Amino acid sequence: MPMPRDEHQPVPEEPAPLRVIGTRPPLYGAVDKVTGRAVFGADISLPGLLHGKVLRSPHAHARIVSIDTSRAESYPGVHAVVTARDLPEGAGERFERDNTLAGDKVLYVGHPIAAVAAESPHIAEEALALIDVQYEVLPPVLDVRRAMEADAPLLHEALRTWSLAGQAASPSNVAEHLQHVKGDPERGFAEADVIVERSFTTTMVHQGYIEPHASTALWHPDGSVTVWTCTQGAFPVREHLSSLLHLSMARIRVVPTEIGGGFGGKASSYVDVVAALLARKAGRPAKVVMGRDEVLKATGPTPGTFIRVRMGARRDGRIVAAEAELCYEAGAYPGSSVGSGADTIFACYDIPNARVDGYDVVVNKPRTSSYRAPGATPAVFAVEQVVDELAERLGIDPLEFRLLNCAREGTRRVSGQPYPRVGFAEVLEAARAHPHYRAPLGGPNRGRGIAFGYWGNWAGQSCCTISVNADGTVSLLSGSVDVSGALTGIAMQAAEELGLELEQVQVRVADTASIGYTDVSAGSRTTFGTGLAAIEAACDVIAQMCARAARLWGVPVETVSYDRAAFTTSLDPTKRLSFRELAAQLSATGGPVMGRGNVDGDVLRRGGAPGLHIADVELDPETGKVTVLRYTAVQDVGRAVHPGNVEGQIKGGVAQGIGWALYEGCFYGEDGQLLNPTLLDNKLPTAMDIPEVEPVIVEVPDPVHPYGVRGAGETPIVPVAGAIANALYRITERRMERLPMTPAYILERMGVI
Amino acid sequence: MPMPRDEHQPVPEEPAPLRVIGTRPPLYGAVDKVTGRAVFGADISLPGLLHGKVLRSPHAHARIVSIDTSRAESYPGVHAVVTARDLPEGAGERFERDNTLAGDKVLYVGHPIAAVAAESPHIAEEALALIDVQYEVLPPVLDVRRAMEADAPLLHEALRTWSLAGQAASPSNVAEHLQHVKGDPERGFAEADVIVERSFTTTMVHQGYIEPHASTALWHPDGSVTVWTCTQGAFPVREHLSSLLHLSMARIRVVPTEIGGGFGGKASSYVDVVAALLARKAGRPAKVVMGRDEVLKATGPTPGTFIRVRMGARRDGRIVAAEAELCYEAGAYPGSSVGSGADTIFACYDIPNARVDGYDVVVNKPRTSSYRAPGATPAVFAVEQVVDELAERLGIDPLEFRLLNCAREGTRRVSGQPYPRVGFAEVLEAARAHPHYRAPLGGPNRGRGIAFGYWGNWAGQSCCTISVNADGTVSLLSGSVDVSGALTGIAMQAAEELGLELEQVQVRVADTASIGYTDVSAGSRTTFGTGLAAIEAACDVIAQMCARAARLWGVPVETVSYDRAAFTTSLDPTKRLSFRELAAQLSATGGPVMGRGNVDGDVLRRGGAPGLHIADVELDPETGKVTVLRYTAVQDVGRAVHPGNVEGQIKGGVAQGIGWALYEGCFYGEDGQLLNPTLLDNKLPTAMDIPEVEPVIVEVPDPVHPYGVRGAGETPIVPVAGAIANALYRITERRMERLPMTPAYILERMGVI
Repeated sequence: MPMPRDEHQPVPEEPAPLRVIGTRPPLYGAVDKVTGRAVFGADISLPGLLHGKVLRSPHAHARIVSIDTSRAESYPGVHAVVTARDLPEGAGERFERDNTLAGDKVLYVGHPIAAVAAESPHIAEEALALIDVQYEVLPPVLDVRRAMEADAPLLHEALRTWSLAGQAASPSNVAEHLQHVKGDPERGFAEADVIVERSFTTTMVHQGYIEPHASTALWHPDGSVTVWTCTQGAFPVREHLSSLLHLSMARIRVVPTEIGGGFGGKASSYVDVVAALLARKAGRPAKVVMGRDEVLKATGPTPGTFIRVRMGARRDGRIVAAEAELCYEAGAYPGSSVGSGADTIFACYDIPNARVDGYDVVVNKPRTSSYRAPGATPAVFAVEQVVDELAERLGIDPLEFRLLNCAREGTRRVSGQPYPRVGFAEVLEAARAHPHYRAPLGGPNRGRGIAFGYWGNWAGQSCCTISVNADGTVSLLSGSVDVSGALTGIAMQAAEELGLELEQVQVRVADTASIGYTDVSAGSRTTFGTGLAAIEAACDVIAQMCARAARLWGVPVETVSYDRAAFTTSLDPTKRLSFRELAAQLSATGGPVMGRGNVDGDVLRRGGAPGLHIADVELDPETGKVTVLRYTAVQDVGRAVHPGNVEGQIKGGVAQGIGWALYEGCFYGEDGQLLNPTLLDNKLPTAMDIPEVEPVIVEVPDPVHPYGVRGAGETPIVPVAGAIANALYRITERRMERLPMTPAYILERMGVI
Repeated sequence: MPMPRDEHQPVPEEPAPLRVIGTRPPLYGAVDKVTGRAVFGADISLPGLLHGKVLRSPHAHARIVSIDTSRAESYPGVHAVVTARDLPEGAGERFERDNTLAGDKVLYVGHPIAAVAAESPHIAEEALALIDVQYEVLPPVLDVRRAMEADAPLLHEALRTWSLAGQAASPSNVAEHLQHVKGDPERGFAEADVIVERSFTTTMVHQGYIEPHASTALWHPDGSVTVWTCTQGAFPVREHLSSLLHLSMARIRVVPTEIGGGFGGKASSYVDVVAALLARKAGRPAKVVMGRDEVLKATGPTPGTFIRVRMGARRDGRIVAAEAELCYEAGAYPGSSVGSGADTIFACYDIPNARVDGYDVVVNKPRTSSYRAPGATPAVFAVEQVVDELAERLGIDPLEFRLLNCAREGTRRVSGQPYPRVGFAEVLEAARAHPHYRAPLGGPNRGRGIAFGYWGNWAGQSCCTISVNADGTVSLLSGSVDVSGALTGIAMQAAEELGLELEQVQVRVADTASIGYTDVSAGSRTTFGTGLAAIEAACDVIAQMCARAARLWGVPVETVSYDRAAFTTSLDPTKRLSFRELAAQLSATGGPVMGRGNVDGDVLRRGGAPGLHIADVELDPETGKVTVLRYTAVQDVGRAVHPGNVEGQIKGGVAQGIGWALYEGCFYGEDGQLLNPTLLDNKLPTAMDIPEVEPVIVEVPDPVHPYGVRGAGETPIVPVAGAIANALYRITERRMERLPMTPAYILERMGVI
């Protein structure tokens, strides 16, 4: 990979100033998307298309005694009914398989059991009622701490806790116990002058994307299948289909449609296999579109958690010890985000002695999925209140306290490696310098809180190709789907590297048959990782074009270079070709030029993105209603490729964080029924609920990226609940130990009710 | 390019035997295509789609005085009416522009003048009648020889003959006069003992593809356009749109649909610009689908010709002199296939002294387009009867006479370069050895003729990418559309190079936004040229995977090689990884692997494909009806990648050749009206008309291709008319000087009528 520039490398003389990166062009396809003209998952239509509907469990925990589909199969207009028996023998991982179509047990309300394909969605729904399922209902376990008890109902009789000590002997709902230790926590706490310990619980929260999951499958006579789906990553859907259908990847083509929100929730595949099974059995294409209730009942919430944090500091303000216990609800199958919660909880600080214990726990609720900075928000909600309390007890300004203790380049993380260059201090200093931090609150029942958050980012694997057109424009093919305007950021990096204007770069999202493996658009990786792939493809283009120029001029290729949109040779100052001029000559000098970029960004020692948020809130002491008055979010984004888009990410993350902090959540009855399966009852913030959020971009370039880019999309949600909780403390003198901080909870904490 | 293996290079020990090349797998997508499930040009549907129809000239030659579209514009259901005035000022080459929508003159019956987009095709047709065009009708010129006369009506007042001497001073219908000279023709004829001279005329013939042209355009809010079209090459359509719409290539995406026949006629763009103009003006997507009469009146016939051939031979059988004059009808605009006619006419023979004169002549008929071996069939029809007559006059067996005079490696062509290795003699020897050549004719009124033909093939520019999937399969993206099963042949070469089975190769046709520039699928170039691109992409994949294996094993990459589907290192015989095993480890060893192939096959000194045909025919002396009884086609194909598909090409080419020889043609009245604008009147051969054709594959590998492939698709049409004419001579003792050789013409030649 030619791009990563070592920061210790001598800087070339007079580097060309950036022309495209840092500008704010309109996003690709934005008008098509907001006007609905773009093709989203549910928009796919094919001749002879059947409509699929899924039968879901009414019970949170039950054994399936029998399934009789015969009445549904003979219902007029029904073309296929499928159950887990239609999955190939032994295909796929057991848990993947069972979550797609239940095997012998159902584990949550909404668990898919069977599906029907019919001439219309209405017929399919009617036929669902004709499927006779006999259950043996079992007691559910819904709370993470209850699930960890020895006598709790067991979801998986074969599940044994995995930990560093190996696999436990007896069954448990705890799938994994992970631990990070740094220094000597006991000695650390012995040194501390002040120790704070608190416990926190947070509720499952749904990602709340507006577009429900939708998938359409078409089988071809040669036994191959095309699947159109709204997803954050077409390739993982292909792998999932390959595994569960026992089908070679060469027989699957996944075409990603435009996507109406994902936030991590569309990194999982729910209805793709079901659509494929229905289409195969019916011999006609089949589409499955989820209803809103299905989305809220059976897809991707982020874990509810129980988190205990204990921290100790010396009188001089130095944090000397910390420990945390994180218990995360995985939902029905193992795989919560406790790992990244544990990774993030102390990530902002340089703590010499620390221990983190994480528990991945199954409960009778839907399998959890990623949600923007998965696992980090509850952890930071917890730790930032404890840090705030420590500062208060020590009489130190909370921002100064964080600056005193913040991680720096070389600080070893509790969870592992030392940090490369990351702008923790720069972010804190920018926040301190911001007028908001010292502005008067301007009224009673108002408080200001801050919280410090971090997301480690991911880079993942990406592919791009860039083809040169004869008029000097180029066509960029991206393996990544266009989430959050990432495609524009990727194209901007290609344009910058190629010395072109952005409008000279045509850009398209590839299907899985058209480019190399590319990971999901998630983990704040896309602008960074797929950007690197685009840069690598651009470098490949430039190298090939240098060779053409060398051939045209009869000079050695090593003497040809490309800078400021011109090819020149060191041997003859009169020779000069612009990109456009050389592009016009490619056909006559050896044919077309297409470059490729194949990147694994995770081989690079990249840094994450810290963010410090300042929240002013007002509390109505009678109703407990909280109004966010002013909000400033300071963040190190490395380099803002498209500052407007980065600001949009920050504003969007803060908006989601405010919803999570104050009212969002999936609330379950004791029987495991989701009590709020509509967007009326599962309130998402609207424009009326969110103040003007001021994003403050700090640019501490990441040296492993040629333009210094860091992922920026997830950090904005991480500190929000913590900042609001700390603001509420200033008003209520109560620490908030629960999310969401609903009016009822706040009044309860205040002893009003 | 790593592939071209020099024939003089030492052959590696025990080369791996070919596993995929030479087999006969089912063609990709064949069932979808023959069942109509594949998406062809007219199948595209979009929300809000408008339907376009084209107003065409009723006159063969007229000046347009005025066009009034106001009544059509106000007709209910009409959304846009366009004329040449809607083309951007100065966009495109004049002739391209005028053939798309007429400027100040119409030059043939069917010439597009205006187009309407409406809610339905019926409304659009009704509105066409409301467009008022005032013409000043001019006398047409329809015959190539009449058009060359000094007093002929002029189509283009500004057209001046271009020749080696430069541009002529006075206007003419002759666009170009080309000339090839070798040796001293006059001295050659002086040496000759026998001289034969004859003149021939042939009629325009339509390619007769079953699917009419269809194009759909959708404009996006950012000013870019997507066009779905049935074409032999999406990139040339993009270039055409870019030129005529004055639009950057980065703003155009051409998506090639499946294509229902082309044979060269879909290498031209007719309705793409019209659909784009209508869609832009209407603000809604628009589709234009031609009717059959529009196809036959206004698209791609191959030129009608007048050809004079004179050849001289010595008593010993050696041809010593030849001259030819080829006058080709270009149709309304310059650009007939006279160049390749002139290139082909003496291509099969080693003639020391020769002169060829070619004339490209405009007439008031539709602009001609390529048709399978463009220009070659009339030339070979002519020359092969003269050669036959020379052999007869000298008393030499016609096959022996051709063998005595055939071109060989190193023979300098009349039109230029010496030949590389081409199997002229091998083909003749295979024909001589074939039982057909000596088999009894078995009845009266029967005759056997042979003809020798050649097509020089084209290689052109092509791009492919190959991406490696984690299960060891690969995905191949082709810049070439799938004409004649070429996609399967391309994938077979990739599979061969990668050591995979064909079913492990997924293959897709790219749109213009997804891959590098790729020329039309034409000129027998696709299996050769895009095959080379696929091989180059495979080599790129292998090189990257060798580097991964080297990293895994900790050995220098130079020690790693790939052979027989396994990576090994010369440093350690215990190390071995299959393709599949290494594919599974790519993600963990540096990320995805995608290879690219960018090829200009024309930089290689490749050879063409000679073919010798043997035809047995029976003539009904009362009606003049000809029945082809037995047909054998011997051809050097280099290496048959898919022998079944090559045989299909040979059979298809012979079938088309029989139609052309005996009854096909575009017949015009004196006023320039096409007299047979339906497939009822423009008879194409059916299964009832064609005998079982026996293809005989001769494999003289082309050393510039790693597997020896030569283009094979065009030669099969070239000798057919000549072979049938020579067979008819044996019955009638008359040389056939006209195509088609209809019963009426044959009876006339025989003096019966």
